Amino acid sequence: MGDILDSLTIALDVMSGDFGPRVVVPAALQALNHYPNLHLILVGPSAEITPLLPKHYQRLTIVESSSVIANDMKPSLAIRHSQGSSMRIALELVKNNQAQACVSAGNTGALMGLSKLLLHAIDGIERPALVAILPALNQRNTVVLDLGANAECNSDMLVQFALMGAILARTSLNIDNPRVALLNIGEEDIKGLDSIRAAASILKADKNINFIGYLEGNEILTGKTDVLVCDGFVGNVTLKTVEGLIKIFLSSTQLMTKRHSLLMKLVGHWLQKKMTKHFGHLDPNHYNGACLLGLQSIVIKSHGSANQKSFFAAIEQAILAIKHNIPERIATSLSSALPKSENN
Amino acid sequence: MGDILDSLTIALDVMSGDFGPRVVVPAALQALNHYPNLHLILVGPSAEITPLLPKHYQRLTIVESSSVIANDMKPSLAIRHSQGSSMRIALELVKNNQAQACVSAGNTGALMGLSKLLLHAIDGIERPALVAILPALNQRNTVVLDLGANAECNSDMLVQFALMGAILARTSLNIDNPRVALLNIGEEDIKGLDSIRAAASILKADKNINFIGYLEGNEILTGKTDVLVCDGFVGNVTLKTVEGLIKIFLSSTQLMTKRHSLLMKLVGHWLQKKMTKHFGHLDPNHYNGACLLGLQSIVIKSHGSANQKSFFAAIEQAILAIKHNIPERIATSLSSALPKSENN
Repeated sequence: MGDILDSLTIALDVMSGDFGPRVVVPAALQALNHYPNLHLILVGPSAEITPLLPKHYQRLTIVESSSVIANDMKPSLAIRHSQGSSMRIALELVKNNQAQACVSAGNTGALMGLSKLLLHAIDGIERPALVAILPALNQRNTVVLDLGANAECNSDMLVQFALMGAILARTSLNIDNPRVALLNIGEEDIKGLDSIRAAASILKADKNINFIGYLEGNEILTGKTDVLVCDGFVGNVTLKTVEGLIKIFLSSTQLMTKRHSLLMKLVGHWLQKKMTKHFGHLDPNHYNGACLLGLQSIVIKSHGSANQKSFFAAIEQAILAIKHNIPERIATSLSSALPKSENN
Repeated sequence: MGDILDSLTIALDVMSGDFGPRVVVPAALQALNHYPNLHLILVGPSAEITPLLPKHYQRLTIVESSSVIANDMKPSLAIRHSQGSSMRIALELVKNNQAQACVSAGNTGALMGLSKLLLHAIDGIERPALVAILPALNQRNTVVLDLGANAECNSDMLVQFALMGAILARTSLNIDNPRVALLNIGEEDIKGLDSIRAAASILKADKNINFIGYLEGNEILTGKTDVLVCDGFVGNVTLKTVEGLIKIFLSSTQLMTKRHSLLMKLVGHWLQKKMTKHFGHLDPNHYNGACLLGLQSIVIKSHGSANQKSFFAAIEQAILAIKHNIPERIATSLSSALPKSENN
């Protein structure tokens, strides 16, 4: 497999997500078609994968797996019984430098735990965080983390997320001095949880961070900050709330024009184009794929319910992370910003 | 003031919110105009209130206050220095049976603390919760709590919120056997925080509760449950996220038709009517006013940023709570559902 490493190689956990091979394999073929220098390693039972492939294909390797980590399995248990699972094998391919990134739509807790176990966190990072770059309405983007890797976070973790988020905003969004905010239930100093207030006072004192204070839920898509930090529980609920609402709005244009005259149908068509232009970029299918930031390697978590289009978007996230060399940039920037761990 | 008690009497904390008398006084006049049996007690300095009143008014009393609880004041400190404040005096009017409800747009923590201190929680309720009835898209409504009174909640509190929410759904929404769900980051049993999992197992075992399990953020407005329970931090962020997005969408129809021909302007007008019909009921201005559920009396918290329309909506929430006799119904239903506190 040596020569594959000369180009872009990504391992896909084919058995993950609600639809497994039925979604992952078509998305893989689409990605191969779209990126001529891309190689994909599909991890799963070839008996399930091969029937979904065309007669002739290239830049695609199948690596057998014998089990699947269920979505409802407790992460600690899943990790203990992970030998031979598609998720673990996909991560091992990254560990052994046979792939530069792994994409999985599987059990978030297990993916987090196995990634830490096999690929290790960057020095100075307690726990990696799921991060996504969300589109804001004024043509800006916002780096949001954690989106669900850590349901509970202490202040140190929030500060580390802020540092990593700022580095990502600099490297991926080309923002010189990114604004960093903490998501909270009020803008006043006294508001929120102890962990958030403690993180705020650390960030305020850090001259390397352009900390702008607290932002509330209604500011999530307004582009008022470049980096928005929260714990994984709140981040996950909020992201899904946004996604749910946008789906409702995008589908509403269809509902609005039902049972109407031809003229209204034409108007509806125009309206739909307009709505898609204004809000289509907020469609979760367009930005699926959250990076597990803080690992020494690249792991992308896709929505469990991803369809072909959105799993393709997750593969694209992996390609971007490889191109931007995210883990190394985070490690380099952090080594100057954070005190070294005494174990190292 | 005795004869006022024969009808509907509500005390308003005039000095609360971002705009104080400028919003509260016009909203009060609007409410008096709309409800002929309503009496309002405006708590604040008459020097600031009187200039905003018409020459002749009726069913309106001014009660002087000498201070205001600032929004950025720590609740414990605010409560210690609350003597003479508009918020405290408004709550004391309820305590002394001079008003049946209090409406304030002030410091949430202080309002919660002072309400507990002066008006007491219902037996069996550790901490009252902010509740609102949110409109769902399929013409159903969802009782959502806690929306920000308790940033951190243990499992017992979540269970109490579920019980209170179900009673509210029965009494206010006329739903016989309301479905109750916990907001979580996955639908599987293993997902989420310890407090949520513990609450789930208590609710599952309770035959009086129609517990349907976990719901994720994307289901918040879909009407899949009648009662949605979460801690106050998550509830507040989520509610504000929803409000922020809906504002963006409702204003988007105006943006879409700018710089267009007359025909497009006409289409835009039609579109705006349609959008308002479909989503206008989700406009935060229409459902402002969260009830502090679990108190022996009625306290309504308005958004700090409320305008006249939305403060009027908060007054209407107080009227509804009085008409439905919410505190007494909660107390009666809970006394059979919850074990009695040993102190009573």
